[in-house]
Amino acid sequence: MSLTISALLPLALHISFTFALDNGLAITPQMGWNTWNHFGCDISEDIIMGAAKAIISNNLTRFGYEYVVMDDCWQAPARDPGTGAPVADPTKFPNGVKALSDEIHAMGLKFGIYSDAGTYTCGGRFGSLGYEEIDAQTYASWGVDYLKYDNCYNEGLAGTPKISHDRYANMSRALNATGRPILYSMCNWGEDGPWNFATTISNSWRISGDIHDDFDRFDERCPCTTILDCKLPGFHCAMSRIIDFAAPVGQKAGPGHWNDLDMLEVGNGGMSFDEYVTHFSMWSLLKSPLILGNDVTNMTNETLTIITNKALIDVNQDSAGSPANRLWKRAIAVGGDLQLWAGSLANNQFVIALLNTSPNGQTVDVEFSDVFVDQGPAYQQGTYTVYDLWQKDSTGQWGKNVGTFTGAIRRVQIG
Amino acid sequence: MSLTISALLPLALHISFTFALDNGLAITPQMGWNTWNHFGCDISEDIIMGAAKAIISNNLTRFGYEYVVMDDCWQAPARDPGTGAPVADPTKFPNGVKALSDEIHAMGLKFGIYSDAGTYTCGGRFGSLGYEEIDAQTYASWGVDYLKYDNCYNEGLAGTPKISHDRYANMSRALNATGRPILYSMCNWGEDGPWNFATTISNSWRISGDIHDDFDRFDERCPCTTILDCKLPGFHCAMSRIIDFAAPVGQKAGPGHWNDLDMLEVGNGGMSFDEYVTHFSMWSLLKSPLILGNDVTNMTNETLTIITNKALIDVNQDSAGSPANRLWKRAIAVGGDLQLWAGSLANNQFVIALLNTSPNGQTVDVEFSDVFVDQGPAYQQGTYTVYDLWQKDSTGQWGKNVGTFTGAIRRVQIG
Amino acid sequence: MSLTISALLPLALHISFTFALDNGLAITPQMGWNTWNHFGCDISEDIIMGAAKAIISNNLTRFGYEYVVMDDCWQAPARDPGTGAPVADPTKFPNGVKALSDEIHAMGLKFGIYSDAGTYTCGGRFGSLGYEEIDAQTYASWGVDYLKYDNCYNEGLAGTPKISHDRYANMSRALNATGRPILYSMCNWGEDGPWNFATTISNSWRISGDIHDDFDRFDERCPCTTILDCKLPGFHCAMSRIIDFAAPVGQKAGPGHWNDLDMLEVGNGGMSFDEYVTHFSMWSLLKSPLILGNDVTNMTNETLTIITNKALIDVNQDSAGSPANRLWKRAIAVGGDLQLWAGSLANNQFVIALLNTSPNGQTVDVEFSDVFVDQGPAYQQGTYTVYDLWQKDSTGQWGKNVGTFTGAIRRVQIG
Amino acid sequence: MSLTISALLPLALHISFTFALDNGLAITPQMGWNTWNHFGCDISEDIIMGAAKAIISNNLTRFGYEYVVMDDCWQAPARDPGTGAPVADPTKFPNGVKALSDEIHAMGLKFGIYSDAGTYTCGGRFGSLGYEEIDAQTYASWGVDYLKYDNCYNEGLAGTPKISHDRYANMSRALNATGRPILYSMCNWGEDGPWNFATTISNSWRISGDIHDDFDRFDERCPCTTILDCKLPGFHCAMSRIIDFAAPVGQKAGPGHWNDLDMLEVGNGGMSFDEYVTHFSMWSLLKSPLILGNDVTNMTNETLTIITNKALIDVNQDSAGSPANRLWKRAIAVGGDLQLWAGSLANNQFVIALLNTSPNGQTVDVEFSDVFVDQGPAYQQGTYTVYDLWQKDSTGQWGKNVGTFTGAIRRVQIG
Repeated sequence: MSLTISALLPLALHISFTFALDNGLAITPQMGWNTWNHFGCDISEDIIMGAAKAIISNNLTRFGYEYVVMDDCWQAPARDPGTGAPVADPTKFPNGVKALSDEIHAMGLKFGIYSDAGTYTCGGRFGSLGYEEIDAQTYASWGVDYLKYDNCYNEGLAGTPKISHDRYANMSRALNATGRPILYSMCNWGEDGPWNFATTISNSWRISGDIHDDFDRFDERCPCTTILDCKLPGFHCAMSRIIDFAAPVGQKAGPGHWNDLDMLEVGNGGMSFDEYVTHFSMWSLLKSPLILGNDVTNMTNETLTIITNKALIDVNQDSAGSPANRLWKRAIAVGGDLQLWAGSLANNQFVIALLNTSPNGQTVDVEFSDVFVDQGPAYQQGTYTVYDLWQKDSTGQWGKNVGTFTGAIRRVQIG
Repeated sequence: MSLTISALLPLALHISFTFALDNGLAITPQMGWNTWNHFGCDISEDIIMGAAKAIISNNLTRFGYEYVVMDDCWQAPARDPGTGAPVADPTKFPNGVKALSDEIHAMGLKFGIYSDAGTYTCGGRFGSLGYEEIDAQTYASWGVDYLKYDNCYNEGLAGTPKISHDRYANMSRALNATGRPILYSMCNWGEDGPWNFATTISNSWRISGDIHDDFDRFDERCPCTTILDCKLPGFHCAMSRIIDFAAPVGQKAGPGHWNDLDMLEVGNGGMSFDEYVTHFSMWSLLKSPLILGNDVTNMTNETLTIITNKALIDVNQDSAGSPANRLWKRAIAVGGDLQLWAGSLANNQFVIALLNTSPNGQTVDVEFSDVFVDQGPAYQQGTYTVYDLWQKDSTGQWGKNVGTFTGAIRRVQIG
Repeated sequence: MSLTISALLPLALHISFTFALDNGLAITPQMGWNTWNHFGCDISEDIIMGAAKAIISNNLTRFGYEYVVMDDCWQAPARDPGTGAPVADPTKFPNGVKALSDEIHAMGLKFGIYSDAGTYTCGGRFGSLGYEEIDAQTYASWGVDYLKYDNCYNEGLAGTPKISHDRYANMSRALNATGRPILYSMCNWGEDGPWNFATTISNSWRISGDIHDDFDRFDERCPCTTILDCKLPGFHCAMSRIIDFAAPVGQKAGPGHWNDLDMLEVGNGGMSFDEYVTHFSMWSLLKSPLILGNDVTNMTNETLTIITNKALIDVNQDSAGSPANRLWKRAIAVGGDLQLWAGSLANNQFVIALLNTSPNGQTVDVEFSDVFVDQGPAYQQGTYTVYDLWQKDSTGQWGKNVGTFTGAIRRVQIG
Repeated sequence: MSLTISALLPLALHISFTFALDNGLAITPQMGWNTWNHFGCDISEDIIMGAAKAIISNNLTRFGYEYVVMDDCWQAPARDPGTGAPVADPTKFPNGVKALSDEIHAMGLKFGIYSDAGTYTCGGRFGSLGYEEIDAQTYASWGVDYLKYDNCYNEGLAGTPKISHDRYANMSRALNATGRPILYSMCNWGEDGPWNFATTISNSWRISGDIHDDFDRFDERCPCTTILDCKLPGFHCAMSRIIDFAAPVGQKAGPGHWNDLDMLEVGNGGMSFDEYVTHFSMWSLLKSPLILGNDVTNMTNETLTIITNKALIDVNQDSAGSPANRLWKRAIAVGGDLQLWAGSLANNQFVIALLNTSPNGQTVDVEFSDVFVDQGPAYQQGTYTVYDLWQKDSTGQWGKNVGTFTGAIRRVQIG
């Protein structure tokens, strides 16, 4: 499904800039775990600490997973009536957020929190609109390292890039003003084109409605066919649809400012092993943040195999920070389509993916004239060593050497 | 046409929030009667009192119908020149609005009124734009319980969610400031996406141009093919088109804040019995307010049968407040289409509807994998008792037990 | 091509409101002549007086043509450097605009002028943006009765209804403040939907880019396929395309506030006699202002026959002020399409048009269920006397009685 | 591929206005050379001086090429910390920009610079947003004659014509305030329709995302199918796609204010000779600025032949300043399409182009009724002398006389 090409040609010069929020974070896409996809609103100190311990015990930190993010529903019914500061639910978090954060830090992990650029959060707790400064200060005092910032109940403050930008920039400034580096993960579902306006105010921005743990089923609750001017991002967006959404906006991401394709569903049960492989591969190639969304205290070997594929994670964390591009998408008669993606990595390496959403296996030629459309004739006529990132080679390393090729890679088996 | 499935599986946890206008109203969709669809501008105290009496004499209150709403054209030619307060037409309402409201309250009903967030109402009377406070205060002094607030002659104050939100929020605040709970029924025809911005300022919002008493005829005066960015909601929207419009936005409604599919046409003569059954069923499943629009002083048995279907009304008023979703829509060769809708009810019950807009009856399998796409494999493989909500069973209750099923409900007859 | 049906059924109640600019003008669509379509920028006192005299000598006033409108290029190179007041080109208008206006008034005609809601007019003369008051005052002092107000060089003041409304409302207020009734003819090419926002500030509004003297040729300079959110109205819009554009917005017009389909091309040579008949018929049915755009000093009998068809003008000037609706539009295999239009007139009369843009004659049944879709079954089953508005009957009146019909008019010959 | 018709008919009157930025520049489309397409960020005084010398030694000034434009990446890492003035990279430009500008002026050429209407340039250097005055003053003090002004990192200041207009007008005013005539080349990629709002504030405006050196390959990074409301102009736009984009907006250009189709790729190697001929021809006919983007120090004879085609340059620089229009575009069964373009030149001459994007040669009739759709029957029936602008005639002049024609030019061979 995914190949890295080690090119034998001289290095090409690459330019890469970093203009994200000036906090030095997310130079590569952030990695971690978030409560929402598996636990929804039913969270507590115990659940979060359980996950943190499982991250450690499963050695996930070795692969880069470091942020433990507490999503919606951590809040008490109301802010502190005196100060207006945010307050956590005392039942779910009897020791407070600071204690939880300290524990997580003590384990060598980082701690993330959630709020919403509106009157209420999506789960109906108090939102941060109009409370940006006190909330940012409180988060900093709690040792928060990461903020996921949602878009519900925004009082109509959307509809032009300027309105959306200004609402989200308020929190960006407030976070910076704390002096604590806090990764700022915008979640406005792609409204008004954050890939255009958010690169300098955030470390990542969601591009669509919420992911659903499904391979490619169309759901009317995720109604838009493109995200470029979507008036209802919705939710229940199948994994493959988010890949479609991401195709045109990859060009806007880079070190410190990423397109967020939403949290991973790997291990949540709605897709087959092969489908989760596709999911994890494409999130990696598209340089999406890799935020696990499953129950890490209870994982199958299959799940663990996928989320710890070092070769794919290396692609995601590659220093060039360049999302793969879709070279073509071809409809298949029996339904679904076939897609060729390719991306540049550092050290003159490249990654290729063939994505097949049809029900059958497909055999196809990958032409180097397509793969290297940006690099030109010299690359298109080159000779390459090809690895398969889903098989280990004889030395036990990810990436099995499957041969040396010139020109097209003929008869690639996809499935 | 409509089935309730009594599931034998354990209760699933559901989260539901209430963030509508903080007035405690419309926890379930409002029900009642409105003058417009049948009487248009030709209204008077006599007509409204006649309808109120017919609501009582037909026992409609027992089914939940409680609001008697006086739509456009109740106004005098001009406001009070001294105070600027709204004044009713003294010919049509010789005893004034307060007296009418008192009479209606004395009958155990609630009283609604109409105005417009513009310079004029759609019928050309004075609008409330710039008069929000005095109008709300006057309505409260008249004992008004409900305001339908229209969108004509709005002086260009539309085009972004912010502009529309702010114009409608002005009246929301004014109503709240009266101290009287007044249900706030927005009618901006879906412009700028009220499902996104109006959930916290109103109890319901219209989603389209005005309904027309027709099953599915396309009329160029209702030109948009989607409501997500419709620049001319218009009117003469056939009933089936409004169902199409509603499909993606069901996700945005819930207790206290509903999508309003417009007032009912049942009994007005433009559709057949079967078509009105579909109309009433779908309005119920989609959790639209159920506001009768016919002449309730002169109803056929067929009309009465439809609007007093307790089983459907129970679906509409179900405490979970969760609109049905459209699982699929399939074109039929002879024209029209077939649609599967399903929704969750409280107590782990579910409702299914098959909507057929083709000229012929259709036989189709309903797969539980579709019906329970949100609930997952355990539900998809469950065994259910199925009732038909349009036939009484042997005990005289709505909902005939038509058998116990596992997997797909095969050979459902639609028509 | 066009029929009036004299119904034998009782009068239906109709509601019609007048909320246009509160100047009492254009209660029926304005009629007159304008310099632009034939003379463009090459205008002068002589040309305008020549046209005015021809209007009188051809008895056009008897048919309702009364406004003589001087379009762009009447201006001097600059405003009065001292007062900022507009100044006319002294070469083209040696006696000044006031003298011309007086002469035209002396002939029993009314006088119109042109300016632009921007920095420059479309022809590059000084515009009125920022000069609304002094310009309106000057026009009033010149005895101007009509202002066509264009949209070029508007400095980006478009893009939302609010921005466009406010720019055009400035001139509306300025005209009203003069105390002289001046018909206000907005020409913003449909940008931001004037049918939604301009009904209370103007007497008519253009709905599209400029008409081209052509029946139905697509021209890429008029690129939009709908006007509902057209970002480039352009020009060179063929006559039939403007009819397509007008179909959904007819609902928004009425006494005092009209959709302007642009000035007539009848007599300018780009269409055949039959095509001009269609042009004049549809402008009449759609209640467009009827502003002649040809050289009235040099007209063929054919041209005169068309523009003085009293029966069609009566339809246009009918007191109900209700534009015809398009009931259906059907593609024809050889190209083009067939359209059924019908509209209500005062006194329970109706007008029908079958519009054929295909190259061949077509035979079609007109079903009364379509024609009377708004009126319902009683009308659909009625018996009618039918007149053909393009043939005189034996008494020399327009409208030949072609029989009495019940139900569908079968085998209508269109061509 | 391209023909000029010398008409034998009398001169038609033409009106042309000049309302661009009131600086007297770009009365015909600007011509010159720019660093970006070939050198990207790797620029220096040496590279620019090398190019300037090559322009002289290749006699390109004789053909009109005069501006030498230094694109992005000339800047130091930061502005002058004391004054805030822009500072050049001291390594790349050891003698400073003023010295470079003086040298270029001494060679008889003009000097252009680049900046961005945002916080950063696209290449990550300091942008000019909020620094318009000091930047314009500094450019003037450096002897800058031309500013290309880009659109990256604009902080959400886009989305309505008003917002984009105001941001770009700030620099327009600042440039004018310097007193030095500086050609203002807007580069906002067509966002919000600069053809509508920028005609009075700039000399040219880009209409699309960046060109890619490719004939017609679709690239998802240039996703829009029209530019009229494109929310992601992107880059990697193939040459033929930009021609499609340009078709509807030609009407908005004229002396002093041009549609900029982006810099030329002729000579950069991504297209064949015939494809570059098409590229140069269409840029000429559409009155795009002709800014070379290749390495002028190292050109093949083929490249030189194309960019010095005097006949085409004369079309581009024709005093009427009227971009060609597309009369039709016809799909071809094997893929691609065939297009007819025609434009008016001064002195009653005309230019025709047949554009073929299919893989095969095509034979087609060019009907004078299409070519002269704007001029009418007299022209459509005229007799013309036809020249082929890509072949020299016997006297060594560009434009081979290929015969005299009446009516259609039959059997034009396109290749």
